[in-house]
Amino acid sequence: MKRPTIADIARRAGVSKVAVSYALNDRPGVSEARRNTIKAIAREIGWQPNSAARALNGARARAVGLTVCRPARVLGMEPFFMELISGIESELSARSYALLLQVVTGHAQETEVYRRWWGEGRVDGVILVDLHFDDPRVPEIENLGLPAVVIGHPSETGSLAPVWSDDGAAMRETVEYLAALGHRRIARVAGLPALVHTVLRDRAFTAACDGLGLTGHSIVHTDYTGEEGARATRRLVSAANRPTAIVYDNDIMAVAGLSVAQEMRLEVPADLSLVAWDDSPLSQVVRPALTALGRDIPHDGAQAARSLLALIAGEHVTGVQTETARLTPRGSTGVPGHR
Amino acid sequence: MKRPTIADIARRAGVSKVAVSYALNDRPGVSEARRNTIKAIAREIGWQPNSAARALNGARARAVGLTVCRPARVLGMEPFFMELISGIESELSARSYALLLQVVTGHAQETEVYRRWWGEGRVDGVILVDLHFDDPRVPEIENLGLPAVVIGHPSETGSLAPVWSDDGAAMRETVEYLAALGHRRIARVAGLPALVHTVLRDRAFTAACDGLGLTGHSIVHTDYTGEEGARATRRLVSAANRPTAIVYDNDIMAVAGLSVAQEMRLEVPADLSLVAWDDSPLSQVVRPALTALGRDIPHDGAQAARSLLALIAGEHVTGVQTETARLTPRGSTGVPGHR
Repeated sequence: MKRPTIADIARRAGVSKVAVSYALNDRPGVSEARRNTIKAIAREIGWQPNSAARALNGARARAVGLTVCRPARVLGMEPFFMELISGIESELSARSYALLLQVVTGHAQETEVYRRWWGEGRVDGVILVDLHFDDPRVPEIENLGLPAVVIGHPSETGSLAPVWSDDGAAMRETVEYLAALGHRRIARVAGLPALVHTVLRDRAFTAACDGLGLTGHSIVHTDYTGEEGARATRRLVSAANRPTAIVYDNDIMAVAGLSVAQEMRLEVPADLSLVAWDDSPLSQVVRPALTALGRDIPHDGAQAARSLLALIAGEHVTGVQTETARLTPRGSTGVPGHR
Repeated sequence: MKRPTIADIARRAGVSKVAVSYALNDRPGVSEARRNTIKAIAREIGWQPNSAARALNGARARAVGLTVCRPARVLGMEPFFMELISGIESELSARSYALLLQVVTGHAQETEVYRRWWGEGRVDGVILVDLHFDDPRVPEIENLGLPAVVIGHPSETGSLAPVWSDDGAAMRETVEYLAALGHRRIARVAGLPALVHTVLRDRAFTAACDGLGLTGHSIVHTDYTGEEGARATRRLVSAANRPTAIVYDNDIMAVAGLSVAQEMRLEVPADLSLVAWDDSPLSQVVRPALTALGRDIPHDGAQAARSLLALIAGEHVTGVQTETARLTPRGSTGVPGHR
């Protein structure tokens, strides 16, 4: 099994390789009939101008890259990534672009992958996710001159184009809503502390609680898995001064928190109110349904892809702020103690 | 912004392009010191042997392709695909292979994509999903000589290597279990009728019901969305002779069916037992938790990737039968009428 070559076409057509080359490149010296035969054979056996010719002609890779630094098996449980990818694909597929996806173990391997992809002409650009503070990938990509869009806050994206939403505003709105219901002790079960958006949400949470004069608020960091979400919930509600409301950084952890509440015979929302950041079918099928901060993640993915394709086309692209997450109150939040 | 070339290295190193080429290809004629300088510059600016040189040398693409014929936005809601991809990635990432992913609108575009990917040296092989009867992709791929693994039943995979599990056996076990609980009228809310595995499950369902002397069994086909799952459930339970048990072809539809039961004041499992094919966190967080037929989808994805990489390496690969889906009884199934 091997890729079809000009030699294969020549053999089938019973002509020389030079004749095939002339025919395929529409140069004179081959009769119209023979040209058509040769082109038909080329189509039939799936011949394409090889990457060599394409690259030398400055042809595009017609692919964009996305690396994900997450254990591969965790990917399948994170609706976020699949929704992001579905949004990216909605733009790419309309333009016959492919998405090159690779799971990496850390930033070092990730920048290695970028160098290879870009140097070998496998991608025309990349979409960067899970932005860290002082993220080493940003200057690396700048040095490579690799077109890139970052899903992350513009304060940390250097010269790369950010696609971001105002998580601070969404967090403030959530804390104010819980305070208005009468909650005085609120906890936050957060994601990975190394990520920019985790820290920005942490800060907004603390500032909002302080601003409203709430005391006893606390933050627990996790790895986004249901197990850690459950463990954090158990720890929080077992404390002497347990919170009456918890805001989770994803839906999986909020659902796990709901199970812990049920297992510990806490009534939701009378004993404990729960809010999920990231809405999903999951949030809506549990009972009570979860109050959630919803973003249109496919829309953000599509926006990132659009910005990247514009960059690749040589257009000037500035950052894009997408819609702030919206709070949708459902059955999991209420007045504390009210039955 | 452009990819680094040998000319860029030559300019930075203050030498000729020929000298750079000699140095990078470890040919004599360049001093050891200069060779090291040139290689260091090449590394720094991210230069890589271009696709031309690589392709001419028969180098591998180090990527495998996967196309998905599903509206992009639906992808984000289907745990199946992300779990499959996570399994594929677990094998690929260990070997620094990337996954080239493209959403397509139909078989014609899909085979077009395969021709381009293979012809242009973008992939070393592909993984085929959603197998149809007389699937036109199978002979197309055979003609191209493109290494491929099919996730699907071996009766329809031609000369391509199948990765499959015995859905018929799992369906029989499920119907027998429901019959043993006392159910006499069982319905199946199935997926797309054009897919091989849907039809094989349909046949096994009907044969098992008939074999046990159950009457009034019925099948409704859907597009796998929660909306169609809910609609099918409403229709089934509104019928004069409503079923006492429903087996769904995915978890999303089973959860939607559970919501319909609650909305119509049917008690689960006393009035209606529910089984989901494909277990997931979703099945386990709803109340009652769903009895489910679980497959290890990431494992199947990993198996497909392993088989494909072996094929690419020139090994002889036969089909692989993976574990049959296991039935895990939970709260959503019980003796009909028992409260």
